[in-house]
Amino acid sequence: MDARPEKQERWDRRMEAPLAVASLLFLAGYTVRVLAHGMDRVWLDLCLAVTLGAWGVFIVDYVVRFRLSGLGPLRFVRAHLLGTIVLLLPLLRPLQMVKIYDGIQRRRRGKPRLTLYARVMAYSSLTVTLLGFAGALAVYQHERGASGATIRTFGDALWWAAETLTTVGYGDVTPVTTIGRFIAVGMMACGVALIGAVTGSFSSWLIQTFTREDEERPPGGTPGAS
Amino acid sequence: MDARPEKQERWDRRMEAPLAVASLLFLAGYTVRVLAHGMDRVWLDLCLAVTLGAWGVFIVDYVVRFRLSGLGPLRFVRAHLLGTIVLLLPLLRPLQMVKIYDGIQRRRRGKPRLTLYARVMAYSSLTVTLLGFAGALAVYQHERGASGATIRTFGDALWWAAETLTTVGYGDVTPVTTIGRFIAVGMMACGVALIGAVTGSFSSWLIQTFTREDEERPPGGTPGAS
Amino acid sequence: MDARPEKQERWDRRMEAPLAVASLLFLAGYTVRVLAHGMDRVWLDLCLAVTLGAWGVFIVDYVVRFRLSGLGPLRFVRAHLLGTIVLLLPLLRPLQMVKIYDGIQRRRRGKPRLTLYARVMAYSSLTVTLLGFAGALAVYQHERGASGATIRTFGDALWWAAETLTTVGYGDVTPVTTIGRFIAVGMMACGVALIGAVTGSFSSWLIQTFTREDEERPPGGTPGAS
Amino acid sequence: MDARPEKQERWDRRMEAPLAVASLLFLAGYTVRVLAHGMDRVWLDLCLAVTLGAWGVFIVDYVVRFRLSGLGPLRFVRAHLLGTIVLLLPLLRPLQMVKIYDGIQRRRRGKPRLTLYARVMAYSSLTVTLLGFAGALAVYQHERGASGATIRTFGDALWWAAETLTTVGYGDVTPVTTIGRFIAVGMMACGVALIGAVTGSFSSWLIQTFTREDEERPPGGTPGAS
Repeated sequence: MDARPEKQERWDRRMEAPLAVASLLFLAGYTVRVLAHGMDRVWLDLCLAVTLGAWGVFIVDYVVRFRLSGLGPLRFVRAHLLGTIVLLLPLLRPLQMVKIYDGIQRRRRGKPRLTLYARVMAYSSLTVTLLGFAGALAVYQHERGASGATIRTFGDALWWAAETLTTVGYGDVTPVTTIGRFIAVGMMACGVALIGAVTGSFSSWLIQTFTREDEERPPGGTPGAS
Repeated sequence: MDARPEKQERWDRRMEAPLAVASLLFLAGYTVRVLAHGMDRVWLDLCLAVTLGAWGVFIVDYVVRFRLSGLGPLRFVRAHLLGTIVLLLPLLRPLQMVKIYDGIQRRRRGKPRLTLYARVMAYSSLTVTLLGFAGALAVYQHERGASGATIRTFGDALWWAAETLTTVGYGDVTPVTTIGRFIAVGMMACGVALIGAVTGSFSSWLIQTFTREDEERPPGGTPGAS
Repeated sequence: MDARPEKQERWDRRMEAPLAVASLLFLAGYTVRVLAHGMDRVWLDLCLAVTLGAWGVFIVDYVVRFRLSGLGPLRFVRAHLLGTIVLLLPLLRPLQMVKIYDGIQRRRRGKPRLTLYARVMAYSSLTVTLLGFAGALAVYQHERGASGATIRTFGDALWWAAETLTTVGYGDVTPVTTIGRFIAVGMMACGVALIGAVTGSFSSWLIQTFTREDEERPPGGTPGAS
Repeated sequence: MDARPEKQERWDRRMEAPLAVASLLFLAGYTVRVLAHGMDRVWLDLCLAVTLGAWGVFIVDYVVRFRLSGLGPLRFVRAHLLGTIVLLLPLLRPLQMVKIYDGIQRRRRGKPRLTLYARVMAYSSLTVTLLGFAGALAVYQHERGASGATIRTFGDALWWAAETLTTVGYGDVTPVTTIGRFIAVGMMACGVALIGAVTGSFSSWLIQTFTREDEERPPGGTPGAS
């Protein structure tokens, strides 16, 4: 990170806004295609075009980064494993949008910033929300036509995503197709980790708060109290 | 907190008891309305009046706090996000009652106070209990009339709340209405965080206890032992 | 603890063995009564006698401790909340047997003792096992006759206890009676806390192990390696 | 560990490769036997032979280690509890393969190594994956013929394993046989611990990352930013 050449950093900064826009367009295009599948063909094709166009932007960005890094292909993939996964599964791109949001936060240093724990919680909550939405979309797309499916509406898919990410898992609605189950396993894995982060930081924050409170209070009682 | 004007602090202290009473009245009124829905109309209207009256107290309190803070509306809402949510969803008010209870505890400094971990656990357990009760009430209200509902009695609703807050999630009873599911998602989110706090502090306490025990014991064995 | 009079300590030491035996007898008597309900009446009565006798020992022990403490009744109950709960629900007594086991371990100081994390894990695992067994017994007793029950054999009850304590909660077998559900809620609460302790200490141990390993290894590589 | 004689260490090093190969052969043989049960008899027998042969290697290795240790049988078993369990349930052997993988990693010190948290996460994820696969295999073997079974294909078994290890537990597919449930309880216990490790280290890493970021940034804002 520290030894990173100037060129890469310039590219990073220049691509921040276009990538954020492309991420939103990808998500929007995919969302409309999945949810409004009864729409006129022209609009569906437009959505597809937007989605593929956004994907194209991601690929170009990835290739430029690869060139700038000066690494061999295998080494680059190993060093940017997360980036490579996100390239192949662009629905996970929202997870990188969170980084961009953090980047924006970092610029305006004048304003009071959130505490460490609040940031971990905000970051994790945002990621969980985006992940849940993307996962619900993808599962809904593959489940809605399946025979014996219990996830029949997008509302069901969102409800299922909430159940899964919090590991409650009622099981009233569950994916039955193979692809749906693969997506579900991915969501379980990510979800467990992210929920762990929220839980861990909330717990730490709570303990820290109580500790500080204990220290601030003088050990002796004020006369007249009680 | 430290630079907080004296006026605000006085308001805080003066409103503590009325707010606690209003919270209890709100919860009681709402509870009776939901559970005793076959009651005489007059009593139901009385309950409604009590509930709305308590809500009025919350609104007045919020407005006075806003005036005393001297902040613009947006800034005040941002700074008191939790307070604003609780104003709109007064069933969450019990979570603030816990703070009041803690405030009472703080006054009687003469008595031995609970350790840090015990307080985190007590705080979290109390909040979980109140949240579970409020959530069960709200879900029961929306589910009892729904077709295909599995939550048919208030007992079912309480059982469902316990399942959800501990993330066990058997799925024998689950909400089927949209509003019920929204409440459930909120409970899952809160529950996961609070359970995490209980778990984390119990775990820390256990480790601390064992550590202290190890330190207290001299390294060599007493002669005659074993 | 430190200022505890000598008499109490002597009582503690003298009662350790009888209490352990009484705990085992209580558990054994209760287990046989629940599982072998088709047995001859004489034996069932004997089991009941053993169970009640053991309970009597617990009550005597509690009363003696109360006398020795020199506290008022309310203060004693507040100071020994856990002990009071265990007196009323003697099936939870196994949780105190764990303490006795720890006491035995402490006596033989010559032998190498387990590390801190191993002890937390051993303690929690043992408690979880005992709690699961006791909970399965109690739930089985109340569920086996209920109409629409899914917990029909003791094997089902054990399977349900494992599901519940790990918060997996498949929901293929669930309690349907009110008492069964109350026991279940208690088990969920205890289980979440204890599993949290196991998880937390395992996680800490793993991180500690890796840290130590890193420190032990010299920073430079040995020539010829790789 | 430090006082371990040279002979044992030489044995360790010599057996590393054979044990890894035997582990893979055992897993492969068992997998083929379970999944391709409609295969020609000759091949099934070959698989059985390979599986038993690999088991033989494990037994020989265990006996040699016992001889080299110079301990009595009971003491050896107590000191190598995990190794003994793995000998009796060789499907758990993959968990030791992870150690071997770590050993290989350790040799090539020239290359940059993963950070502590990344290693804990990699280790736990790998173990969870292997455990999930082995558990799914074993459960599938015992469930596929059972009446009323919901786990009917190997895909179902894998899906069930993912549900179980993340403690989501939908309950759409669950073991119904006694052996299947015993395996399930083992997986729940291991899974909870390992998921806890992943969660804990991810959470710690996230907090560490944010902390470092805070420290790196100078407290004042750069002029011109924002």
